[in-house]
Amino acid sequence: MRLEKDEILLHNEKIEKKHIEKFLQLSNRLADKGLNVDQIVQDLMKLQIAIPSWALGTGGTRFGRFPEGGEPRNLEEKIEDVGLLHALNRSSGAISLHIPWDIPENYEDVIALASSFNLKFDAVNSNTFQDQKNQKYSYKFGSLCHTDPAIRNMAIDHNKEVIDHGIKLGSEAITVWLADGSSFPGQQNFRKALMRTRESLAEIYDHLPGSWSMFIEYKPFEPSFYSMVIPDWGTSHYLSSFLGPKALSLVDLGHHLPNTNIEQVVATLMMTGKLGGFHFNDSKFADDDLTVGAIKPYQLFLIFNELVYGMENNDSQNPPLAWMIDASHNVKDPLEDLLQSIEAIKIAYAQALIVERENLEESRETNDVVKAQELLQDAFRTDVRPLVAEARLQSMAALEPIQLYRDLNIRKILKGERGLKTIATGL
Amino acid sequence: MRLEKDEILLHNEKIEKKHIEKFLQLSNRLADKGLNVDQIVQDLMKLQIAIPSWALGTGGTRFGRFPEGGEPRNLEEKIEDVGLLHALNRSSGAISLHIPWDIPENYEDVIALASSFNLKFDAVNSNTFQDQKNQKYSYKFGSLCHTDPAIRNMAIDHNKEVIDHGIKLGSEAITVWLADGSSFPGQQNFRKALMRTRESLAEIYDHLPGSWSMFIEYKPFEPSFYSMVIPDWGTSHYLSSFLGPKALSLVDLGHHLPNTNIEQVVATLMMTGKLGGFHFNDSKFADDDLTVGAIKPYQLFLIFNELVYGMENNDSQNPPLAWMIDASHNVKDPLEDLLQSIEAIKIAYAQALIVERENLEESRETNDVVKAQELLQDAFRTDVRPLVAEARLQSMAALEPIQLYRDLNIRKILKGERGLKTIATGL
Amino acid sequence: MRLEKDEILLHNEKIEKKHIEKFLQLSNRLADKGLNVDQIVQDLMKLQIAIPSWALGTGGTRFGRFPEGGEPRNLEEKIEDVGLLHALNRSSGAISLHIPWDIPENYEDVIALASSFNLKFDAVNSNTFQDQKNQKYSYKFGSLCHTDPAIRNMAIDHNKEVIDHGIKLGSEAITVWLADGSSFPGQQNFRKALMRTRESLAEIYDHLPGSWSMFIEYKPFEPSFYSMVIPDWGTSHYLSSFLGPKALSLVDLGHHLPNTNIEQVVATLMMTGKLGGFHFNDSKFADDDLTVGAIKPYQLFLIFNELVYGMENNDSQNPPLAWMIDASHNVKDPLEDLLQSIEAIKIAYAQALIVERENLEESRETNDVVKAQELLQDAFRTDVRPLVAEARLQSMAALEPIQLYRDLNIRKILKGERGLKTIATGL
Amino acid sequence: MRLEKDEILLHNEKIEKKHIEKFLQLSNRLADKGLNVDQIVQDLMKLQIAIPSWALGTGGTRFGRFPEGGEPRNLEEKIEDVGLLHALNRSSGAISLHIPWDIPENYEDVIALASSFNLKFDAVNSNTFQDQKNQKYSYKFGSLCHTDPAIRNMAIDHNKEVIDHGIKLGSEAITVWLADGSSFPGQQNFRKALMRTRESLAEIYDHLPGSWSMFIEYKPFEPSFYSMVIPDWGTSHYLSSFLGPKALSLVDLGHHLPNTNIEQVVATLMMTGKLGGFHFNDSKFADDDLTVGAIKPYQLFLIFNELVYGMENNDSQNPPLAWMIDASHNVKDPLEDLLQSIEAIKIAYAQALIVERENLEESRETNDVVKAQELLQDAFRTDVRPLVAEARLQSMAALEPIQLYRDLNIRKILKGERGLKTIATGL
Repeated sequence: MRLEKDEILLHNEKIEKKHIEKFLQLSNRLADKGLNVDQIVQDLMKLQIAIPSWALGTGGTRFGRFPEGGEPRNLEEKIEDVGLLHALNRSSGAISLHIPWDIPENYEDVIALASSFNLKFDAVNSNTFQDQKNQKYSYKFGSLCHTDPAIRNMAIDHNKEVIDHGIKLGSEAITVWLADGSSFPGQQNFRKALMRTRESLAEIYDHLPGSWSMFIEYKPFEPSFYSMVIPDWGTSHYLSSFLGPKALSLVDLGHHLPNTNIEQVVATLMMTGKLGGFHFNDSKFADDDLTVGAIKPYQLFLIFNELVYGMENNDSQNPPLAWMIDASHNVKDPLEDLLQSIEAIKIAYAQALIVERENLEESRETNDVVKAQELLQDAFRTDVRPLVAEARLQSMAALEPIQLYRDLNIRKILKGERGLKTIATGL
Repeated sequence: MRLEKDEILLHNEKIEKKHIEKFLQLSNRLADKGLNVDQIVQDLMKLQIAIPSWALGTGGTRFGRFPEGGEPRNLEEKIEDVGLLHALNRSSGAISLHIPWDIPENYEDVIALASSFNLKFDAVNSNTFQDQKNQKYSYKFGSLCHTDPAIRNMAIDHNKEVIDHGIKLGSEAITVWLADGSSFPGQQNFRKALMRTRESLAEIYDHLPGSWSMFIEYKPFEPSFYSMVIPDWGTSHYLSSFLGPKALSLVDLGHHLPNTNIEQVVATLMMTGKLGGFHFNDSKFADDDLTVGAIKPYQLFLIFNELVYGMENNDSQNPPLAWMIDASHNVKDPLEDLLQSIEAIKIAYAQALIVERENLEESRETNDVVKAQELLQDAFRTDVRPLVAEARLQSMAALEPIQLYRDLNIRKILKGERGLKTIATGL
Repeated sequence: MRLEKDEILLHNEKIEKKHIEKFLQLSNRLADKGLNVDQIVQDLMKLQIAIPSWALGTGGTRFGRFPEGGEPRNLEEKIEDVGLLHALNRSSGAISLHIPWDIPENYEDVIALASSFNLKFDAVNSNTFQDQKNQKYSYKFGSLCHTDPAIRNMAIDHNKEVIDHGIKLGSEAITVWLADGSSFPGQQNFRKALMRTRESLAEIYDHLPGSWSMFIEYKPFEPSFYSMVIPDWGTSHYLSSFLGPKALSLVDLGHHLPNTNIEQVVATLMMTGKLGGFHFNDSKFADDDLTVGAIKPYQLFLIFNELVYGMENNDSQNPPLAWMIDASHNVKDPLEDLLQSIEAIKIAYAQALIVERENLEESRETNDVVKAQELLQDAFRTDVRPLVAEARLQSMAALEPIQLYRDLNIRKILKGERGLKTIATGL
Repeated sequence: MRLEKDEILLHNEKIEKKHIEKFLQLSNRLADKGLNVDQIVQDLMKLQIAIPSWALGTGGTRFGRFPEGGEPRNLEEKIEDVGLLHALNRSSGAISLHIPWDIPENYEDVIALASSFNLKFDAVNSNTFQDQKNQKYSYKFGSLCHTDPAIRNMAIDHNKEVIDHGIKLGSEAITVWLADGSSFPGQQNFRKALMRTRESLAEIYDHLPGSWSMFIEYKPFEPSFYSMVIPDWGTSHYLSSFLGPKALSLVDLGHHLPNTNIEQVVATLMMTGKLGGFHFNDSKFADDDLTVGAIKPYQLFLIFNELVYGMENNDSQNPPLAWMIDASHNVKDPLEDLLQSIEAIKIAYAQALIVERENLEESRETNDVVKAQELLQDAFRTDVRPLVAEARLQSMAALEPIQLYRDLNIRKILKGERGLKTIATGL
């Protein structure tokens, strides 16, 4: 299914007037503060968040899965779904593939299809946390860290193949997330497991083309329940520092112990030039993979506050960041959920862009804690939705994407096309 | 597969001498403290822990599953597996069935089979957290709490049916664990959801035979990631108090927020006469479902310390407790894992039985904190394994169950009988 | 120091015009949604949050304390400070005293002084967590739960005296927060400690005048580090249910284990008619006692969302709630900190008042999770500060309280009057 | 007060026989497993744990403090107290001083006094978390990270002075623990604060004598409640790597977020050659500073399991570790509490020494998870107290230190000598 421009224009026409009024009121107030509203809208238009191919179907838990229907049945339909999202909000101009779930049959066709939706191919993702049918060895006890060199080599080779697929698609990065770890005290020699992982990553690193990056993800637990080989940013940073400049750390918002100050982790990684990218989602308890901004919107803003500051003060020459959503949609229509996530990201970004940064630094210098808090809260409490909507309007996207999605009965159409019982590959 | 008595006798003969030496050394020391070692061994022999039918296969996470092979393919083989465990340790004299996974085709045959292994049927478990094939409505948005009365009624009827199955098997309790909850703020009206759950439970309660109990489990999160309708002991206690004397709270060790003092929860529930039973497992992060005692053995001991005290000082007339293991075996042979869990439970129980209780109460009365700690640590630091082994010896079980299991190549035999790719119903 | 009305009028005049513009823009939009803006402003004006007498000085940690200067040296100066706050925002019309720190020398004088600032006396607070000079026995090992009846009686008598002081001041409630608990496994008999506490509370309960309430606070840890006698809402609810209709549970936002869903606790307590009141603050890690709304503003909104719903749907006849701030000001001027806290509370309340409640209930009934989330987020993302400011304007309070506080150099004046090294009684 | 050798000999004589019986029984069993019991006893005798000078008095919380009486009033009495402990268990042969609380008046006298008790001076500790009387600037808003260079320099100079004091005493390390951080979002520029801290530490590092080490402690929160400048091992490791080979990370067991796998952190730090030392204590919720081993004895064992392995497999040339207790004694006699802590450390060390390490590595290589767990649990479940007691016996320490301490009425004597109301400097 492909959204027509007219449908968007029609939608916008009806509600444009009200939007413009709100936008002007807000613009005036921000301009009074000395902010460059045009620039902010431009920045918002530029921010593109990749959609992972596995997020287009209904997710599940170990206890069960309740499919929504109309889920994409193959890579082409996944690209179509991202195309739909991108048409609606012009902020999802990339898709992140998961190998082996999304191996293209014909690269040129797939690239052409993606291009027809203005989509690029973001970081490719390897999978050594599941056994594929007819796989020679099992990853039950690890992959890059495995005690058996044959299994490590199989996992290394898989990662190299993922890079090769990515090269053909025009990707420029691989994200390595490892389920490797142990579920019981004693099971694993921590030091040897980390050392073997380091060696395996070094082999994969050597396979990277010149322009590529390798993103090393960390996670404290699940699916291993006692230790993960790369449990925290410190270990990821140790590895990316060891490997070289192409290796960077990747932050998934749900991969932290309770109460972690994630915005500080982000700041520290940027300070050392080692922040590669983000997996956005939200969580209350664990790696809950909820809609971005659904639980802790202020934390999301504080993270963007560091990102904006870090991008503007990049003395450590941190490379441009890769942005991706990584959520699971257990009780929502996946496409609506993704629209909500992108909206939340854009709002947080807009809030961070209107922080009166000079005043903030000044209040920090003088330890005026009350003032510093006021400045951040002022930005956060401002209703920036007109800025985000304006960025959409100027990009020819829909002013109210979810509303249009519902008005057009898109899920119903997809169910009709694809069936009620389709289940997309993924978790 | 059925274990012969001779195999056990043979195994014991070889290592009995060494055991007796250790047992006597320990007995003498405990007797010096005024403890009745015979009574302790008797108590240990009496403690029977039910095995849930779903714990006999390899578990998994939402990320993957790595089967072990030789898993039971039907109810009969599950009973056989529990029979094996019981033959090995004489401490697993009951099986807890899960409906609809374990609906018997012929009740008499199933009861006869179980009896031939000296097994009883423990609490039956209902399942409204998954949709079964051809189910009229979906539990996607809840069961007993659902906004739609038709779905609530379907869930109520299912629970009644589970009770009916249980009656035919000789069970005397139903355990109700609900996945009901919400994953996003706003999704659910907390008050209405709890009220509807209360009403639904009341209908199920009315269906209980006179001698039956209803165990109400609580859990703070997963599979719902923002709120669960029954998130904590307080809510479970509120419901069980409202429903009546047959309703009791059930504690699953993995169902608590970080840092919860579970032993205190146990004490409070017993004080109000409302503790029904236990689901044993261990965890480091969330509901990890690890082998009992694998992570926090001291906490396990402290819980048993409350249980022993509570059973000896039962002025609130708390009914006898139901004991069950509820673990998942992702990286271990399920039967070996269960043997380890039962051993850990027995050890904790033995440690609690040798606490010098009068001295402890005295040191508490005088606020001699150092002494009170010493007394608990003295019990915990004592190597009580000879007591547990002696209880096995006197019950005609194996002195070293895992060793015998391995010596007899039981998993290999099961794989031969049942195949390498069998997957037991369960999580 | 006493703020003159003219100072406020002068301040408001200068910035009124800009406020009115913003307020009208917002009013129109809210009116379009069918909301009664006048009523909302009235509701905001009515909400009064009590200031605890111990929050007027700089707080500290066990590691140190860094006084601000100009702190109140006695009860009269504390009342003056609350008077100042109330003049600035007309939302702090009550003071909550702590006995024995704030025992009046002359009740009539103190009442007259408070009245001159339009202040009432909110709940009185007892203190059995510290030993006072010349105290007969020590609370080192507990108070209402102590093993020694003489110490229990001392603590009971103290609570009765606190009630007597409160009666003379016109208070109508006592808040009981107990530090009682244990720091080591074994130290305390959980059941006996809780039972003794229940008995002690019953004696205090009998001393309550007919119109009074007793608020029972809970806390999971600190200053006891292994167990608290009243660790959670479940235990508080058990006690308040046992004691009778005057006993209610009190929620302090900082007194929960990591990840607790506090809004659900609030809903459940209101459903059972047992929510007495609130201690507002914010926290990231433990009982951090930070400025309200400084860390988790969305959680604060969700809590108010339950409160507004609960007050409008009060079939359980929950009594009117008592609102109090309970924060510590380690790095901020206490008065500025309190102004920030009250602003955050009012904002959260305003956001909750503009939730489209009928639509929300409808989307819940139909399990339209996306829509339910949108509705809550819409209210939260709306910049409601003009509503809160308008409520101040209509109450003759300052449009920008902190700005006026700074413009008038109030802290400097207080330092001049009271000295730089004053330390208010409190934590 | 000074313990006479005869008192110890007399004490031991009475109970020696029973001990020898137990020790022989255990020795035989361990020897059967191929363990060298003599070597283990030697290792246990060698392990010396430093006592911090601030741990000799009763600790407190921000809510209150309940002194025990008889606390040391000056440095000399603190040394005496450690001397007492060392006489009792011959495992506390060092004292760790805190500047400015413990500045000696006469170095030679103090060294002579310590020597008379066979005590050395362990790492010295700086204090920039409190303001001292007549201090020029305040540390309210930080020390080594402060925005004001004058305050940074004051803090740097203080640390240099601490080193100078340490040099005169024969210490060889300084421990830097910083309270620096922020309590509110916005308060601090994370990157600048960390960069300034790095620069300040570099200046202190330059002042270190050739043989000295600098230990950099980390802590996630308290007394700052939103961010700490050095919140986790990753940041500490970043700093110690930047500074040079003399800089090492220090692990305090209470300074971690909930559920952290501390033993893994220890392993990783050793693997990189950057583990400097330990602050031992235990905790259930936060930095509770409880007696070592009182809450999570299995975790303590697992940590020692890594330490023993790391010391035996030191390819990263990690320097010898510094061991210190860092606990607070709110409800116990500090000296008894310290005896319990040291006993717990020695037990954990002994358990780690009897792990069948070759078998463990073999089971890890073959991913025999059940066996690996059995091997660790076997060591942990063994009652190793006779080993620890034997090490004491051979060192001329008391077989049962707490018993002897009580038999000799030492606290009563100290109260007589020093008074009931003495309060030791410290927290």
